[in-house]
Amino acid sequence: MYNDLPETELRTYKSSQLCREDFDAFWEQTLLEARGAGGEVVIERVPAGLATVDVYDITFPGFGGDPIKAWLRTPKNPRRPLPAVVQYVGYGGGRGRPWENLFWASAGFAHLQMDTRGQGSGWSVGDTPDPGASGPQVPGVMTKGITNKETYYYRRLITDGVRAVDAVRTLPWIDPGRVAVTGGSQGGAIALAVGALVPDISALAVTVPFLCDFPRATVITDAYPFREIADYLSTHRQDIDTVANTLTYFDGVNFATRSRQPAYFSVALMDPITPPSTVFAAYNAYGGEKEIQVWPFNGHEAGGPDDDHFMLQFLAQQLDPSVL
Amino acid sequence: MYNDLPETELRTYKSSQLCREDFDAFWEQTLLEARGAGGEVVIERVPAGLATVDVYDITFPGFGGDPIKAWLRTPKNPRRPLPAVVQYVGYGGGRGRPWENLFWASAGFAHLQMDTRGQGSGWSVGDTPDPGASGPQVPGVMTKGITNKETYYYRRLITDGVRAVDAVRTLPWIDPGRVAVTGGSQGGAIALAVGALVPDISALAVTVPFLCDFPRATVITDAYPFREIADYLSTHRQDIDTVANTLTYFDGVNFATRSRQPAYFSVALMDPITPPSTVFAAYNAYGGEKEIQVWPFNGHEAGGPDDDHFMLQFLAQQLDPSVL
Amino acid sequence: MYNDLPETELRTYKSSQLCREDFDAFWEQTLLEARGAGGEVVIERVPAGLATVDVYDITFPGFGGDPIKAWLRTPKNPRRPLPAVVQYVGYGGGRGRPWENLFWASAGFAHLQMDTRGQGSGWSVGDTPDPGASGPQVPGVMTKGITNKETYYYRRLITDGVRAVDAVRTLPWIDPGRVAVTGGSQGGAIALAVGALVPDISALAVTVPFLCDFPRATVITDAYPFREIADYLSTHRQDIDTVANTLTYFDGVNFATRSRQPAYFSVALMDPITPPSTVFAAYNAYGGEKEIQVWPFNGHEAGGPDDDHFMLQFLAQQLDPSVL
Amino acid sequence: MYNDLPETELRTYKSSQLCREDFDAFWEQTLLEARGAGGEVVIERVPAGLATVDVYDITFPGFGGDPIKAWLRTPKNPRRPLPAVVQYVGYGGGRGRPWENLFWASAGFAHLQMDTRGQGSGWSVGDTPDPGASGPQVPGVMTKGITNKETYYYRRLITDGVRAVDAVRTLPWIDPGRVAVTGGSQGGAIALAVGALVPDISALAVTVPFLCDFPRATVITDAYPFREIADYLSTHRQDIDTVANTLTYFDGVNFATRSRQPAYFSVALMDPITPPSTVFAAYNAYGGEKEIQVWPFNGHEAGGPDDDHFMLQFLAQQLDPSVL
Amino acid sequence: MYNDLPETELRTYKSSQLCREDFDAFWEQTLLEARGAGGEVVIERVPAGLATVDVYDITFPGFGGDPIKAWLRTPKNPRRPLPAVVQYVGYGGGRGRPWENLFWASAGFAHLQMDTRGQGSGWSVGDTPDPGASGPQVPGVMTKGITNKETYYYRRLITDGVRAVDAVRTLPWIDPGRVAVTGGSQGGAIALAVGALVPDISALAVTVPFLCDFPRATVITDAYPFREIADYLSTHRQDIDTVANTLTYFDGVNFATRSRQPAYFSVALMDPITPPSTVFAAYNAYGGEKEIQVWPFNGHEAGGPDDDHFMLQFLAQQLDPSVL
Amino acid sequence: MYNDLPETELRTYKSSQLCREDFDAFWEQTLLEARGAGGEVVIERVPAGLATVDVYDITFPGFGGDPIKAWLRTPKNPRRPLPAVVQYVGYGGGRGRPWENLFWASAGFAHLQMDTRGQGSGWSVGDTPDPGASGPQVPGVMTKGITNKETYYYRRLITDGVRAVDAVRTLPWIDPGRVAVTGGSQGGAIALAVGALVPDISALAVTVPFLCDFPRATVITDAYPFREIADYLSTHRQDIDTVANTLTYFDGVNFATRSRQPAYFSVALMDPITPPSTVFAAYNAYGGEKEIQVWPFNGHEAGGPDDDHFMLQFLAQQLDPSVL
Repeated sequence: MYNDLPETELRTYKSSQLCREDFDAFWEQTLLEARGAGGEVVIERVPAGLATVDVYDITFPGFGGDPIKAWLRTPKNPRRPLPAVVQYVGYGGGRGRPWENLFWASAGFAHLQMDTRGQGSGWSVGDTPDPGASGPQVPGVMTKGITNKETYYYRRLITDGVRAVDAVRTLPWIDPGRVAVTGGSQGGAIALAVGALVPDISALAVTVPFLCDFPRATVITDAYPFREIADYLSTHRQDIDTVANTLTYFDGVNFATRSRQPAYFSVALMDPITPPSTVFAAYNAYGGEKEIQVWPFNGHEAGGPDDDHFMLQFLAQQLDPSVL
Repeated sequence: MYNDLPETELRTYKSSQLCREDFDAFWEQTLLEARGAGGEVVIERVPAGLATVDVYDITFPGFGGDPIKAWLRTPKNPRRPLPAVVQYVGYGGGRGRPWENLFWASAGFAHLQMDTRGQGSGWSVGDTPDPGASGPQVPGVMTKGITNKETYYYRRLITDGVRAVDAVRTLPWIDPGRVAVTGGSQGGAIALAVGALVPDISALAVTVPFLCDFPRATVITDAYPFREIADYLSTHRQDIDTVANTLTYFDGVNFATRSRQPAYFSVALMDPITPPSTVFAAYNAYGGEKEIQVWPFNGHEAGGPDDDHFMLQFLAQQLDPSVL
Repeated sequence: MYNDLPETELRTYKSSQLCREDFDAFWEQTLLEARGAGGEVVIERVPAGLATVDVYDITFPGFGGDPIKAWLRTPKNPRRPLPAVVQYVGYGGGRGRPWENLFWASAGFAHLQMDTRGQGSGWSVGDTPDPGASGPQVPGVMTKGITNKETYYYRRLITDGVRAVDAVRTLPWIDPGRVAVTGGSQGGAIALAVGALVPDISALAVTVPFLCDFPRATVITDAYPFREIADYLSTHRQDIDTVANTLTYFDGVNFATRSRQPAYFSVALMDPITPPSTVFAAYNAYGGEKEIQVWPFNGHEAGGPDDDHFMLQFLAQQLDPSVL
Repeated sequence: MYNDLPETELRTYKSSQLCREDFDAFWEQTLLEARGAGGEVVIERVPAGLATVDVYDITFPGFGGDPIKAWLRTPKNPRRPLPAVVQYVGYGGGRGRPWENLFWASAGFAHLQMDTRGQGSGWSVGDTPDPGASGPQVPGVMTKGITNKETYYYRRLITDGVRAVDAVRTLPWIDPGRVAVTGGSQGGAIALAVGALVPDISALAVTVPFLCDFPRATVITDAYPFREIADYLSTHRQDIDTVANTLTYFDGVNFATRSRQPAYFSVALMDPITPPSTVFAAYNAYGGEKEIQVWPFNGHEAGGPDDDHFMLQFLAQQLDPSVL
Repeated sequence: MYNDLPETELRTYKSSQLCREDFDAFWEQTLLEARGAGGEVVIERVPAGLATVDVYDITFPGFGGDPIKAWLRTPKNPRRPLPAVVQYVGYGGGRGRPWENLFWASAGFAHLQMDTRGQGSGWSVGDTPDPGASGPQVPGVMTKGITNKETYYYRRLITDGVRAVDAVRTLPWIDPGRVAVTGGSQGGAIALAVGALVPDISALAVTVPFLCDFPRATVITDAYPFREIADYLSTHRQDIDTVANTLTYFDGVNFATRSRQPAYFSVALMDPITPPSTVFAAYNAYGGEKEIQVWPFNGHEAGGPDDDHFMLQFLAQQLDPSVL
Repeated sequence: MYNDLPETELRTYKSSQLCREDFDAFWEQTLLEARGAGGEVVIERVPAGLATVDVYDITFPGFGGDPIKAWLRTPKNPRRPLPAVVQYVGYGGGRGRPWENLFWASAGFAHLQMDTRGQGSGWSVGDTPDPGASGPQVPGVMTKGITNKETYYYRRLITDGVRAVDAVRTLPWIDPGRVAVTGGSQGGAIALAVGALVPDISALAVTVPFLCDFPRATVITDAYPFREIADYLSTHRQDIDTVANTLTYFDGVNFATRSRQPAYFSVALMDPITPPSTVFAAYNAYGGEKEIQVWPFNGHEAGGPDDDHFMLQFLAQQLDPSVL
């Protein structure tokens, strides 16, 4: 059922989220430090038992130089540099097993699927710890270190996402000039941020992106994980302003205004987890060429394989993999 | 949590299910009629946008000659006949989209994924109607035509499963001597039945097979879809014996005793949908070489990608795809 | 609690549902075929153990001439032709047992309670199969054959409803000029349709009628069975327009505008299953003399026995059973 | 699903419930006081709009002489004294509306349906207050006055039940020598108690009787209303023995051992509300001729209309209404 | 999540509740009778095992002179008369154990915690029966005697609340000129009523007060205990006006307009049990000096210990306990 | 309801948990390092607004020397050294607000309530971060660092618990020879561990202790937080043995066998969170003088204030605060 604004209002809805003056400086400094932290990209071939796809275990330096895991999957024996799709994972999940998620490589792309630090256990498995400290928090990562933008969990994860793009560009089979980012839900949120922070990315394709329009999202749905924030504030009542301030630095709306790449969005009108107004808040603010696929009868699964189909068409058009 | 027998008892548990004298005659006659009903196998290439995998839209004659849909996926341009894996789908689902489910083809097999008549809407989409009549029933297919073995829904679906094997053997890229069947839950139940009904199938690999040990399954779990039967009998109180009799012809336990192929099973000890004792009932009765993977902390998702990994190893060993 | 429009807006709410030009032609043709399909009305006395009421097992030809079951209950040994009340049953149920539902016969009417093809298992038992084919569908009947108005389940059920009236008029104890139709929820939807399709019916009395105002109903409630349609469209994403088109032929709003009989409606303001705006959509569109009973604190049970009381008064006034 | 003992153990299960020495004295004294409290039976014809059944509003003196309401329904204009069925109502309900519940009168019996003091609001409506005091309690009546057998709610309700039989025997159309008691759940519990306390009742027919085998019932189910007792004891931790002692005077097991009438019982093996072992505890202890209908796939609804059918056959055999 | 009016509208929202002309006369007469009913205040020292706080078991005459229990807790050996805080308890609870709830006494107040007649079992234990009769009702006290203002449960409980203030003023250690009332939810509702009915109370401090704005509260939430009223009216359909009339005499909105003391309120914007508009209805109507603490991310727990902190500051300012 | 062993079997139940040879060495080394990590105890008076109790904000060095917060509450102006009760908090909670939890100080003890690192947000608020890293994990702390005993979260928290005792013994108002530890659920688990690790603690009093008998606890309940472990292992299928091994070092059963202090336990027979067999596993293994209070009708709340009462009596007897 519909629980949000009517579609006509969604089309013009603007978030009330603020953007602090030091937003860009904060992220510039964050990336500067991360890129200066050292660490190297390690590649190791994985015997996944597949005939048509090669899989590599990638370790690259993320936030603080922490070693972050990823899978790189490519069509077997590519004959020339491939366009790359960097994919981020939804909340709770990890990079999974090498032989999962064969879509992008089968479609002719180099596909880097980044692991998610400290998650990777809920619905798909991961291998990357999060050495970052946490203050008092509710279960989950939404409030981990939330009282300070420096310590907030998503500072680390978004930086990992940027560094994944840095890493993929160093790999031998990849054309560094043709890199797109993609993801659904939390993965979409990271893609949206990375698109803004790495301007020379070619394109982005996100489904039901999370972490958008916190001022509205935290009060119009009872669904987790947005609700973790309300849970935290229900006991840390004195931290409401502090938390709201932290979140301005991580809101997809603020990233969206800074992006210029062509972008594919999808949104589901019956989605309680990333309510449609929060997705439209980012979409309507988005600074580049853009299109949005509206799924009227879907929840958070959105277009599922149909989104994949549209994203493949969209990214193929943007990145031109020879195979298509 | 555990809700069934302790594992040591599971290892030796035997179902109390009966087998009627005309069980074999019933199925022999059913297949005779189906194979005599005519219809032809139609193959059409599908533009799925993939670089490493070819996808074909298959239509083959199932029960009553009804046109049944399937996807055939193969590694691109196979150079010699491929071993085939015929896969059946879980309850409520269908064959999905052409670009989904690339695992088996990427691993070097010809992969025929059969659609499920009259389902194909719950979690993956399908395209095949079920022209079979239904009596009074509860929602779902578990009680569709259940008062008579001739009209029961699963007579049609299992026959489709057999005919899918018949069909795949006629296709040009396939080595008809190396065909395995696989599936999870309902898909596993169909694979188990087809393994018994088509003795020259090479192997089978099933996860948490459904439709096993009805006498126990219908009273030890409240989970759907087994519960559809209890729901039906809660109003059709006079049909208890009739329904029990019908189900003897469709119980995986009775198929398992008739099979001789090497088989991989998996079972999950926290599974309320196909409780472990019902899976062990079939496994313990199974007539061929067999192994079972026990997942102690999983529900109905069982081994997920880890089952895929083990099944790939198992079937590769049985069918020897050149690529491994 | 209230989840729909305020009552003042309900009173004037108009559905946005469309009506195709061939709506009347479709139904005219449908009934022509059904009435031409042959079959006869069979009556058999049932030993129900009752002293004041006679019960007969009726079989009559419905859609496609399919044999449809019904119970006829009359006061014992009626001395002259009785006015008849034809009742249709709510979703999932069937005609039940002969000795149930004695209200209308005890009140002096001939009471024909039609069975519901392919349902009759959920909360009351039935005996009538649905030989109609189904495409891919979600559990339940709401999406059975929904991609085409010719194959949609409700085409068959509504036609059965019309043929029940045809049948009751041929029975010896009945005055064919005094026939009313009634029902709650799905039963009310069928009554509403039959009232439109059989103009010489004397009156209708419906409580919380289902199947009204699909464009709104499918998006303002999560309650089943309306939600079956959203479930279906959440995987069959490409069928949204097709399904919407089919539903225009079965929407109670379109039937209501065609009716001219006096009608009793009831609606419950806390009803999530047939939300009040969908009922008012039909009521406000209704073309005959009408009254509506609003139950402010009820859910889908609506007025229950109090609706029965009002309906008895209403139908007694319209049909004048001698006994009152 | 099954959550209780296997059926073979149910058949021989014996409750551990105690019976205090003053059990009989307590009830003798209770009835003596109630019968001495005065009050008269008032009968008023009700215009229910029915042609075949007469309905009367009955008021009779119950516990403490409190005015208790009931409906009396008889076949229209009975020509001779009728056998009577006195029916008690399930938890939360009341006598409902005059035009409901026409089964027993339609079957040729005088049918007295007693209202339930202080309930009559949950699923059917009632009209009788409970002037009895209550101590601290959880919502519902299960712990109303539970710290003392004198003040316990069910002392009053069971006494009402006895006095209903006293009352019906004074009515002009009734044959006082042919009175049966019946009811489901709480109604069955009252019938069971009344059968023991009024030895010259002819028969009893109870479905899924409640209030049996408290020592087991209070710890093997989480379902209400048995759970009200656990809820109470979860805060009134010091009252466990006191409450257990009170309940010995109201346990259906202790009534059952004292009864000598022919009795029909039914039990449902999937019933969480009156778990089957608690029903068998009473059945196995029952002192008269007895039969039990086991419903293997039902919950608390048990046999529903099929129980009605069997109860009608049973009571007709015992009471011989001329009409059968 | 938010389910009520936006905060800006809450700030100016006015209830549509009516106030009958005899509202004041009704309460005047009620208190006159209660104060005339006799009974005496009994004090007994309780050995609670505490070193810093004395606890006394108090029994005082409430409505009808019924003996009502309370705990009096004071700082050990107070050297001069103490200001008193009279506290009422939330729905379902009782006065608990002597050694619970030490906040107010530890803060230097005499703290009288009144028991709640006929409740005291749900989450904290109580000892006070409710001898008042009840008509048909749903479980809980919300509909106990609701068809008449004279018999309604809350007439008795509010009167107890007034008499608790009368009683505390007679105790030796207390300064009768410095008495405040407090409570959360139902306790807040009683405090609100007592504040209006005992004008010389010094102050009141209420959190999320219940029983406010019935016309809105009964239709905008499904949460209990407000929902008990809708449950009752869903079967007692004919009593809607009667019940609405009774409730006008007990609505916190009508008490609030009559109060003149300084008051602290708190409200939680995510509270489904006492929805924020119902609290603001009382707050906006309140006739004295007032302040309200809004908790944006809390449900019915509201400010919890943070409300305690603010209430202590507020009442200390109003009552000046020497200790602060 | 009961979901575990019968009480007679609980009384003799023994866990199958293993104890590794290096258990004692592991903890000895852990405490050695923690005590060698430096850091000092900081005390700051808190203006809590209380007249009878003094509250101090304590910071002490925990695991790794991390600063851990606590509240110290004492009776106002104690005239001689007080016995101390160190309390640990249940899962998700923190030390709360200064003016909460006044029971132990009001009873004459010095009461140190330790904060819980990285929790303190769920139901009571906290102030202590957890700088410890986490690997992939499910939400909550149960699987934080679980693949290695060195990195497991509870290594840090238990060490904090030991260091809290070290800290409290340095405070001026405290008699270091009379220190007890207490807590419920997770708090009870920490107390149990600390009792074993600090042999000269005088006594312990634990209610429904958590973290006991992991081999059984992880498979007999679906309730969180034990279920976090099953959730983790449902994706990290290859880590089952590793995790089981880690848990042997943290199982309350293994701590219990090492303790020699007098101990009070309580257990609730309807507790799904710490099922009674897991509590009895620790109790039956406990090496000191012991008593257990069994609450037959309680869930995880166990004895609540009644446990407090018994614990106060027990600890007063052991520690002799002058005030009793």
